[in-house]
Amino acid sequence: MQSSRSHPSVLADVTLPDGRRADVFLRDGLVASVQERAPYGGTPDETAAGDGRVDLGGALLLPAFVDGHSHLDKTFLGAAWQPHAEGGTIRERVGAELRARRRLTVPVTERALRLVHRMVEHGTGHTRSHVDIDPEAGLDNLHAVLDVRERVRDLMTVQIVAFPQSGVVTAPGVPDLLDAALREGADLVGGLDPHGFDGDVAGQLDVVFGLAERHGAGVDIHLHDPGEIGAEQLRDIAARTAALGLDGRVTVSHAYCLGEVADATLARTASALAAAGVSILTNGPAGSMPPVLRLREAGVRVFAGSDNIRDAWWPYGTGDMLERATIIGLRSELMTDDELRVAASLVTTEAAGALGLERYGLEPGSRADLVAVAAASVAEAVAAHPRRLLVMRAGRVLVTDGCPVAGLPAPEPGVQRAW
Amino acid sequence: MQSSRSHPSVLADVTLPDGRRADVFLRDGLVASVQERAPYGGTPDETAAGDGRVDLGGALLLPAFVDGHSHLDKTFLGAAWQPHAEGGTIRERVGAELRARRRLTVPVTERALRLVHRMVEHGTGHTRSHVDIDPEAGLDNLHAVLDVRERVRDLMTVQIVAFPQSGVVTAPGVPDLLDAALREGADLVGGLDPHGFDGDVAGQLDVVFGLAERHGAGVDIHLHDPGEIGAEQLRDIAARTAALGLDGRVTVSHAYCLGEVADATLARTASALAAAGVSILTNGPAGSMPPVLRLREAGVRVFAGSDNIRDAWWPYGTGDMLERATIIGLRSELMTDDELRVAASLVTTEAAGALGLERYGLEPGSRADLVAVAAASVAEAVAAHPRRLLVMRAGRVLVTDGCPVAGLPAPEPGVQRAW
Repeated sequence: MQSSRSHPSVLADVTLPDGRRADVFLRDGLVASVQERAPYGGTPDETAAGDGRVDLGGALLLPAFVDGHSHLDKTFLGAAWQPHAEGGTIRERVGAELRARRRLTVPVTERALRLVHRMVEHGTGHTRSHVDIDPEAGLDNLHAVLDVRERVRDLMTVQIVAFPQSGVVTAPGVPDLLDAALREGADLVGGLDPHGFDGDVAGQLDVVFGLAERHGAGVDIHLHDPGEIGAEQLRDIAARTAALGLDGRVTVSHAYCLGEVADATLARTASALAAAGVSILTNGPAGSMPPVLRLREAGVRVFAGSDNIRDAWWPYGTGDMLERATIIGLRSELMTDDELRVAASLVTTEAAGALGLERYGLEPGSRADLVAVAAASVAEAVAAHPRRLLVMRAGRVLVTDGCPVAGLPAPEPGVQRAW
Repeated sequence: MQSSRSHPSVLADVTLPDGRRADVFLRDGLVASVQERAPYGGTPDETAAGDGRVDLGGALLLPAFVDGHSHLDKTFLGAAWQPHAEGGTIRERVGAELRARRRLTVPVTERALRLVHRMVEHGTGHTRSHVDIDPEAGLDNLHAVLDVRERVRDLMTVQIVAFPQSGVVTAPGVPDLLDAALREGADLVGGLDPHGFDGDVAGQLDVVFGLAERHGAGVDIHLHDPGEIGAEQLRDIAARTAALGLDGRVTVSHAYCLGEVADATLARTASALAAAGVSILTNGPAGSMPPVLRLREAGVRVFAGSDNIRDAWWPYGTGDMLERATIIGLRSELMTDDELRVAASLVTTEAAGALGLERYGLEPGSRADLVAVAAASVAEAVAAHPRRLLVMRAGRVLVTDGCPVAGLPAPEPGVQRAW
């Protein structure tokens, strides 16, 4: 049963992203209408809303955050703390992760659920999760995350990338596993450093784009390869995207190389990405990173994700996409209000566009996947990443004042701590 | 009156920084004793503690955080949101700040109090605040922050640096103003880019170290000058520190140059800093920054601070020193548990050492300035910067579960929002 408390009919006195104060009316899980408040303290007829009214006292209302790059199957959340193992190269880190995975006794399902809850508490409504497909795990992780996706359907949208973490052409049987993953429910096919990991750019991209074409699937490729070697692969990916008509359905994640190459290479590569409709994902890493503003000016869609959260890749990560916007903003020196709004767009509208989410936003007819933040403007929300006052999914309240409401589908029992 | 609720006599079942579980007994605002818990679930005699017992369920207990570099007088907190004004050089930013200051109608006292409260909510017990001393403001900001220091004495320790934000030898009357500031209660004398801002390294350092010697004051100099020019000034500061016997009482804040110079210059400069007992402060900035581990290996004390929080320099900053440890950890790629413990030390013991705080720590006899964090280890606390379950000052509870308790000295009324 839908009570007026769990499914309010109006979010009263919110600040919209454009600064207007408004009352947002909800019906059947959608935004029904947005009524601007009269200036100088006028308020609408309060009786109209009945008792399904939540007064937000001027707090900023945003569409739910989008975490454009997560690894639900990798997190250690829900298990005991796992100290980070050293190892610098991508291949060393993959090895460290395989060893950690063999040690873990808490199943993927339980850890992934714990992470989903953490993300929801911070107002994330949608994520694209890469899921490891490799010779050792086979499709086990995929099956676990498919199960989690079903169980959290009322909390979060989960888009799944079949991710060849141990390589494509150099890992026995992986092309067939990726094919099977797409048949069994993965939405996109992934890739990993065609040059740096597989040492066979054409070979890996033939497999990845071949699968995308056969299954009508999107593509999201991890690319850590540096400088010119990286940029050349980006242009190769852009050419294949254009050839297959995959405009808007291909992402390259990380693309550190765009922060390293000479201006002319950057311009040429950005132009190719923009023309082909290839998006770039960043999490604002410590080293070189894609130049957010330059890419946007060139017409390239840039969006953001957490990447690893408390797993074998690094011990950091909170799942808070507003904090992620701060991290990217600091790394990119986004300072003015316009620039802070860009940072916010990376975790909202731009990410929603890259994921192809439907009915996303605050317009009437949008799905009421919403988050209210203790800030008076988008700029302040990014700079301060303050408390989440309200998180809702399809009109249902999931979180109030940072804490999940009672009765949500819970993570598995047996986790080690209450906090 | 001291109730057992506001002044508990025992913090039961905490995790100590070294991983042991213990009960921490408090008396007269100090740590009276630390009693390790028996392993395998044994608990001490609960009746012994009476009703002044707070059970922390295994949460990590740390000494209160130290924010080694703040600018209490600069923050916009408590005023309406101020969009960031562009301007890249230090001089342009100083100009932008002077213009912002003239526009603000909310007094320094009110804004600084608001910032102190924000810091306390995150578990900060001590800060070193630089306070602008310049021809336009004279000693006005100093007087305001001296007032704030008195008013928050039961919340936080405030150490004051007389900071010549508009230069020393090129700003009319500033040497005399710094002299007056030290007479009126400033604890340290500051400086600013002797080369880059004043264009007179010897001139500025003569004034700064002359005042330090005359007043028996410490020194904390902002140094943004790059590369070799910066490193040369660091060695100059080290030489003056050694000559005056100021070992342990001189800090250089920021010192970006240490992240830019060649290895040999870094080694030579670090060696000079270590020998003279000059500390380095960092906030983990976006560009080049001091190499934390390298400097520590060379024997240089490194510690951390927020720097600007929501002011004319940038819109970012939360006052959360555990988040600061995360920012520095990410920038410095601190990943292993040992490295995460280093990150934590930058905002606790190392900062306390640099500030010369007495009775700091968890040992019996330490002042009970404590913070309990929703984490099971120091490593996890840094990686996750989770909720503050308890903050206390001299044995008095200030914050429970992230929220200030009732009855604290409040920021001025008239601030714009409840959150």
